[in-house]
Amino acid sequence: MRLKFLLHFAFLLMSISTMAQSDDSTIIKGMSDEIMSQGKAYDNLRFICKKIGPRLSGSTNAQKAVEATAKMLKEAGADTVYLQPCRVPHWERGAKETGYIELATGKKYNLHLCALGNSVGTGKSGITAGVVEVKSIEEIHQLGEAVLDGKIVFINFVMDPTNINVFQSYGKSGIGRWGAPTIAAKYGAIGAMVRSMAINPDDAPHTGVTVYNDSFPKIPAVAISTNDANWLSNQLKRKMKLTAFVQTNCMMLPDASSFNVIGEMKGREYPNEIITVGGHLDSWDLAEGAHDDGAGCVQSIEVIRAFKARGIQPKRTIRAVMFMNEENGGMGAKKYEEIAERKGEKHVFALESDAGGFSPRTFSFENTGSQFEKIDHWKKLFYNYGIYEFVKGHSGADIEPLKKLGTVLCALIPDTQRYFDIHHASTDTFETVSRRELHLGAVNMAALIYLVDKFGL
Amino acid sequence: MRLKFLLHFAFLLMSISTMAQSDDSTIIKGMSDEIMSQGKAYDNLRFICKKIGPRLSGSTNAQKAVEATAKMLKEAGADTVYLQPCRVPHWERGAKETGYIELATGKKYNLHLCALGNSVGTGKSGITAGVVEVKSIEEIHQLGEAVLDGKIVFINFVMDPTNINVFQSYGKSGIGRWGAPTIAAKYGAIGAMVRSMAINPDDAPHTGVTVYNDSFPKIPAVAISTNDANWLSNQLKRKMKLTAFVQTNCMMLPDASSFNVIGEMKGREYPNEIITVGGHLDSWDLAEGAHDDGAGCVQSIEVIRAFKARGIQPKRTIRAVMFMNEENGGMGAKKYEEIAERKGEKHVFALESDAGGFSPRTFSFENTGSQFEKIDHWKKLFYNYGIYEFVKGHSGADIEPLKKLGTVLCALIPDTQRYFDIHHASTDTFETVSRRELHLGAVNMAALIYLVDKFGL
Repeated sequence: MRLKFLLHFAFLLMSISTMAQSDDSTIIKGMSDEIMSQGKAYDNLRFICKKIGPRLSGSTNAQKAVEATAKMLKEAGADTVYLQPCRVPHWERGAKETGYIELATGKKYNLHLCALGNSVGTGKSGITAGVVEVKSIEEIHQLGEAVLDGKIVFINFVMDPTNINVFQSYGKSGIGRWGAPTIAAKYGAIGAMVRSMAINPDDAPHTGVTVYNDSFPKIPAVAISTNDANWLSNQLKRKMKLTAFVQTNCMMLPDASSFNVIGEMKGREYPNEIITVGGHLDSWDLAEGAHDDGAGCVQSIEVIRAFKARGIQPKRTIRAVMFMNEENGGMGAKKYEEIAERKGEKHVFALESDAGGFSPRTFSFENTGSQFEKIDHWKKLFYNYGIYEFVKGHSGADIEPLKKLGTVLCALIPDTQRYFDIHHASTDTFETVSRRELHLGAVNMAALIYLVDKFGL
Repeated sequence: MRLKFLLHFAFLLMSISTMAQSDDSTIIKGMSDEIMSQGKAYDNLRFICKKIGPRLSGSTNAQKAVEATAKMLKEAGADTVYLQPCRVPHWERGAKETGYIELATGKKYNLHLCALGNSVGTGKSGITAGVVEVKSIEEIHQLGEAVLDGKIVFINFVMDPTNINVFQSYGKSGIGRWGAPTIAAKYGAIGAMVRSMAINPDDAPHTGVTVYNDSFPKIPAVAISTNDANWLSNQLKRKMKLTAFVQTNCMMLPDASSFNVIGEMKGREYPNEIITVGGHLDSWDLAEGAHDDGAGCVQSIEVIRAFKARGIQPKRTIRAVMFMNEENGGMGAKKYEEIAERKGEKHVFALESDAGGFSPRTFSFENTGSQFEKIDHWKKLFYNYGIYEFVKGHSGADIEPLKKLGTVLCALIPDTQRYFDIHHASTDTFETVSRRELHLGAVNMAALIYLVDKFGL
């Protein structure tokens, strides 16, 4: 596009930017300018993704991320930085996994696969069996032991691409990963190959937790890429005789010691009223965890940095929290609430960013009564920064335990069209994060924290 | 993020999706489902970017793109596909360009540079001279001949990162590229090195047109990357003695023959009322032109395909137009209007997509009187597809000539935080386009064309 026409777009939007002239809009603009020009979130994310990398709970990298973000919080200007010990599950993928489909002709097709989180391994010799495709939970029950016994079940739940809200599709198909393998085990299946939870054709397998029902055998479960799932489904449609081989080395180890990382700015008027802003520090072991959820961590650190850099002394105590173990246990979140409850802390508000570092679109509020109306009045202060709607809905996994303390909860919801391209896969890399989108998310988070701190709830 | 919490987001937004139940919303949902599940825009874009590639006006690749998109339009289901001849400027970059800074110590630093579009070349021996940095047009005038004569002017207009609307920053700094070199030439500068029009630190030089004033000498002008510009500015701040060398081989050749590519669906009730939907087919020679503006082309073709696939026979004649030569002349756009005027065609509406294939956010309408109110009533039909606002503003370079025919004009404006990472640079690749974002843009375009066609303006 040529300049002349871009210029016109500029004028078109200038009218909006001159709208809000209150003190609050000036202060928010100051924080926005600081973050958009001097923001450290992107550089911090680069460090977490490139110098540390994947950081599943219990791993050496998770500990490195604890230390690195504690340092970042100090540099950002937190008054106090401390580690909050918690015990976490410790699952490891182990040595390289392999798998293939062997046609009756003897030809073998290697699969792009990975063990699902918390899955048992196959043992060294792997498992070999015929394959039965299922497309719904009902179909597993219908086929039953007569068909599934001794087989590897191919759980091919396709994510519906027609939902513009991609989470609707995940909500419907996600049970294929977390719930279907153990149901198939009930009927004698000896392994599960699950279509990756991704909408687009893709070669990367996407992991994520599978949950065992203790009443049924624990069978090895893997994800295969959407491209492989489409290929395999076509082979079966053509009545090709085939067997699958899968060999995985994953195992659940004893629980490990880990930490939530907390950085505080002490409130000058109501130091005992706590406002939490956070993301989760752990990531899946296959991914740099850039969007999920390095982004939420560095944005939360940036909120502290922006307050400090702009000389804003909060009335209430603001805590940036890097929660540990969101992906396969949620133990950091439970510990945070447990200690808050034990100490009788007053948690007035908690904001979480865990839907990717994409361009911000919405804030979703939970556990609000009359407060929502108050909050909703602030909405126009966000128009300049890309957020046009506040909704009542759910917030986030790491702050959800605070609900019982009466805390008003909130999630930043960005544009999520790209989310399932990277979710829980090796494709969740630093390179897929836009510096400006990431920082713009932090701007909106800082603005909301500023308003809650100033006016209370 | 874990599944349980994504599920909640899904429910949160379901309420919105059940809102509009009219026939129109059903028809739009049908087109959306078609595009989001069966859309060909992404595959067509891959072809244009990867099988053809850069396609500056007058190049062999531009001609290949003409033929390829004509074929795509036929496959999409256009009744009639034809080429509309036009003459275009034919500028060529020529052999590899080079440049470096040499410090007084003799040490040389190679620059990431590229000639600006329509610039003259340096000749084989290149140019060598001292460097003078300027930060504004006023500074060029102030320094004048006394300082600039015989020098290479380093035009270091920094794009302001604090504007959330990136086009505001481009509007302010863009003159550094298109206007400043010729002003420096007035004062005797023998060459211009222009800071790339990019907001983030970046190694890629970003090209774009520079415009000569015929009263002044035509001096060679290049862009250097933002990283190089920052480095060079620091050297000069430290009073380092240095000279610059630049060698470019670009030249303006005689005008060439080319084409707009047009695919039509004939209207069944008002065939003489024409609705145009388009993008531009040419791209800068350095770039695959994925966002700028392969995206707009394949989205426009997708509108035709969606109508056809859903069996929607338009009342009015819908034309998808691939305009030639937007980047360095606009001759395709002028020809399109010229012929429309000569034939006395009635152009009721024109929609352009030329701001990147990013997630759709806004429609900007131009040349509307009372029609805007009518159009604005349709807005709620777009909420489900990510567009929350209709504004009055500018539309697009290729449809702008139709203004004098009284045509209502419109631009699709997507989220543009990533736009200047790729604008006019080698970084504008297919890989940076999200399939779902691209297709969602096409959904909104198809919906708007559908409503204009059904209800008229």
